[in-house]
Amino acid sequence: MVTPVVLCGGVGSRLWPLSRRDLAKQFVPLLEGETLFQRTLRRFADKTFYARPLVVSGSAHRFAIAEQAEEIGVDAALLLEPEPRDTLAAITAAAAFAVKDGDDPILLIAPSDHLITDVEAFTAAVGAAAEAAAEGKIVTFGVEPSFAATGYGYIRPSAGPARAAQEIAAFIEKPDEPTAHRLISEGCLWNAGLFCFQASTLLEEVRALKPDVLAMVDAAVRDASDDLGAARLGDAFAQAEKISLDYAIMENTERAAVIRSTFAWSDIGDWRAIWRISEQDSENNAQRGDVMLEACDGVLALSQDRLVCGLGLKDVIIVDTPDALLVADRSRSQDVKGVVAQLSARERPEATTHARVHRPWGWYQAVDKGERFKVKRIVVAPNRQLSLQLHHHRAEHWVVVKGTASVTIGDDTRLVRENESVFIPMGARHRLANPGRIPVEIIEVQTGAYLEEDDIVRLQDDFGRSSED
Amino acid sequence: MVTPVVLCGGVGSRLWPLSRRDLAKQFVPLLEGETLFQRTLRRFADKTFYARPLVVSGSAHRFAIAEQAEEIGVDAALLLEPEPRDTLAAITAAAAFAVKDGDDPILLIAPSDHLITDVEAFTAAVGAAAEAAAEGKIVTFGVEPSFAATGYGYIRPSAGPARAAQEIAAFIEKPDEPTAHRLISEGCLWNAGLFCFQASTLLEEVRALKPDVLAMVDAAVRDASDDLGAARLGDAFAQAEKISLDYAIMENTERAAVIRSTFAWSDIGDWRAIWRISEQDSENNAQRGDVMLEACDGVLALSQDRLVCGLGLKDVIIVDTPDALLVADRSRSQDVKGVVAQLSARERPEATTHARVHRPWGWYQAVDKGERFKVKRIVVAPNRQLSLQLHHHRAEHWVVVKGTASVTIGDDTRLVRENESVFIPMGARHRLANPGRIPVEIIEVQTGAYLEEDDIVRLQDDFGRSSED
Repeated sequence: MVTPVVLCGGVGSRLWPLSRRDLAKQFVPLLEGETLFQRTLRRFADKTFYARPLVVSGSAHRFAIAEQAEEIGVDAALLLEPEPRDTLAAITAAAAFAVKDGDDPILLIAPSDHLITDVEAFTAAVGAAAEAAAEGKIVTFGVEPSFAATGYGYIRPSAGPARAAQEIAAFIEKPDEPTAHRLISEGCLWNAGLFCFQASTLLEEVRALKPDVLAMVDAAVRDASDDLGAARLGDAFAQAEKISLDYAIMENTERAAVIRSTFAWSDIGDWRAIWRISEQDSENNAQRGDVMLEACDGVLALSQDRLVCGLGLKDVIIVDTPDALLVADRSRSQDVKGVVAQLSARERPEATTHARVHRPWGWYQAVDKGERFKVKRIVVAPNRQLSLQLHHHRAEHWVVVKGTASVTIGDDTRLVRENESVFIPMGARHRLANPGRIPVEIIEVQTGAYLEEDDIVRLQDDFGRSSED
Repeated sequence: MVTPVVLCGGVGSRLWPLSRRDLAKQFVPLLEGETLFQRTLRRFADKTFYARPLVVSGSAHRFAIAEQAEEIGVDAALLLEPEPRDTLAAITAAAAFAVKDGDDPILLIAPSDHLITDVEAFTAAVGAAAEAAAEGKIVTFGVEPSFAATGYGYIRPSAGPARAAQEIAAFIEKPDEPTAHRLISEGCLWNAGLFCFQASTLLEEVRALKPDVLAMVDAAVRDASDDLGAARLGDAFAQAEKISLDYAIMENTERAAVIRSTFAWSDIGDWRAIWRISEQDSENNAQRGDVMLEACDGVLALSQDRLVCGLGLKDVIIVDTPDALLVADRSRSQDVKGVVAQLSARERPEATTHARVHRPWGWYQAVDKGERFKVKRIVVAPNRQLSLQLHHHRAEHWVVVKGTASVTIGDDTRLVRENESVFIPMGARHRLANPGRIPVEIIEVQTGAYLEEDDIVRLQDDFGRSSED
């Protein structure tokens, strides 16, 4: 049995504006169908081979994780990091957490934001890796390159008899294109960022190579507290050195091995990668949503809710979202990160926050705003409720357009049905709940002189949030 | 005194998505500040030289014309065409209308969608044209070319002594680029589409060259009716041959003359023209609205209400509107028309109708929609009211977010103030009015199984509209 450990640390800013800090690439509909996070969980569906997955994440994504796992019927444990400390701390915490009750499982470390379509080949590779792991190896997965990628690290396997798990001669950082061609001709493999080892093996190596990190992580696991069913690591975690497992352990341990893997793999690192794996027409155009392309070649066009027309474009990326649009030359895909950095420096909310804001009870989206008003659509999941709250500076009108809401104002609670409305005076304690079995949708019209999210006093909350959350 | 005749017939589909049939390029904010229509009217502000302008238009734009003229404090007469019949019929109607009370003014025919920035030089040219017109000439304006335009027609003046008004040797249709270069070197001028003549002169020439058109137009002017203060031409107008003044008259009359003009002129025919006349940065980029360009060159980017980021683009046009986005290579600017034709063929509303729909009482814009609901922002101008109406398939919730509305439901009329709401049951007769001095803004939430615009029964309307309008 192998225990999958799913890492959710990435922000994916090269995939802005679809991926943003508050809901990163693994949780958004980058591709048709399920999110990358859901695809990652589904890859471990075989319960005869995989134990219950452990997801490692920051707090910001915890409700998205719960919601998306539930959506596909997967039960996963959740380990919350107080702050991001790179992969060594995260993976060591997962290993320490896995052994704390006396077990010593074989762990498979899997990023949540990679795409692997050939599950059969993947499972075979994990099987081979698990065997090597049982013999004390720390196994990486080397994928046979399909093109001269400059965005990936490479692994040079040692010469010697071809076995399932080979020793590693060298790790090579992202090369330029001529170097990539040479590496491929020399038999080097892509480093897929997946690891397999027995928990105690890794902990021994961290003790030997990075004892301080192990000490901090051990303390954080010892002090872990229950947080609405998730395990929240103690504050010592924030003291752990920020370093990757590759640098700290893989490049130094004697136990490193690589499994040569044939499954199709992509880290979906930028829009060029999305374009590459997307279905393309005869002019190499890929599109999704309400898109019309005329005389275009090599274009990727994604629309979320508007008509997008491309005319006479070559090798252009168009990504349209309700509040932000990116139009980029495909060759500049890596530089999207810099655009996001500039937007962040200007404190633009579009850099970090989506128009649709996910909350543990559902989501909301601003649909209009004016001088002294704002209009939102609010969707509350069945059996969920928002906090009991009040606003000092705004009144709210709620029109229920779907489902039946339970609305509390002051001491009065009543049902408000589809096509009914209710008024929340400024300063009134109120709560919106969905007691039913289908989502409740309401249109909220806020009026007042100050309409920001921080005008909220939370008096009680099912999700442990204070007024600042 | 010269009477300006402003023609509002164009659709400007090459400037989609900002210009659309229902509100065409002359009425939309293509450039900073006033619309092209307003700039055209303002060009005739000198009341010592220009008489009250006459605007010729179809019905669709009449309320935009009234609103935009009022906005800049211009009083204009309005002549409504029952349907568009090209420039000969429109201009002949203006001339026939001008003489019907026994006057015989000098007319200056001016398209409403051209840009002329040097008003002093323009006025001087009109003065010279008026002199020639008083001598029986039909004067065109030949603008000295500033580049080898392929989108304009050219005029070859006759050789002979340089006078203010020269005779015309030939009209030349839109040339290819080498031809354009040659024409310029030979002293040819751009045909600016402006005409100046005494009304009776033109009518004589139409009688001689296109008597049928004159007969239809004369009948239409005779049968013209008053329509809320505008003159609506009779139905005979629809029988007039569809042909341009250039083909029908200018190329055949002995009275044609050209005024060599030095004012800066553009017909703003496509996005390339907009880019050309826009202020550009050192990398030849022009932008307006919430735009960030990084490593771009020769880009025109216009945003109406969202963040637009361009990265690494060369010679690309980006025009972003609430419901439709165009991204085009600049060299394909003329082909935007074909994109609109395709959208029309697919019956896409974005081809013809803006997200913000102007009405005689103000405007509305859809801001959200779902399975059984739609949300609109509605703005009613002071002292205006919508029709008394009812809907068979929807109920409406109105929240007033600005101003004070007068709301009629059934037999009851009451004031609804800012931050108050009201419910219109399905099937109820109702009316929204603004009795005040500032605009009323409301958020309307419609609920029901069928939410299209054609579910409306108009019982009374200030603007003479039936249920189909």
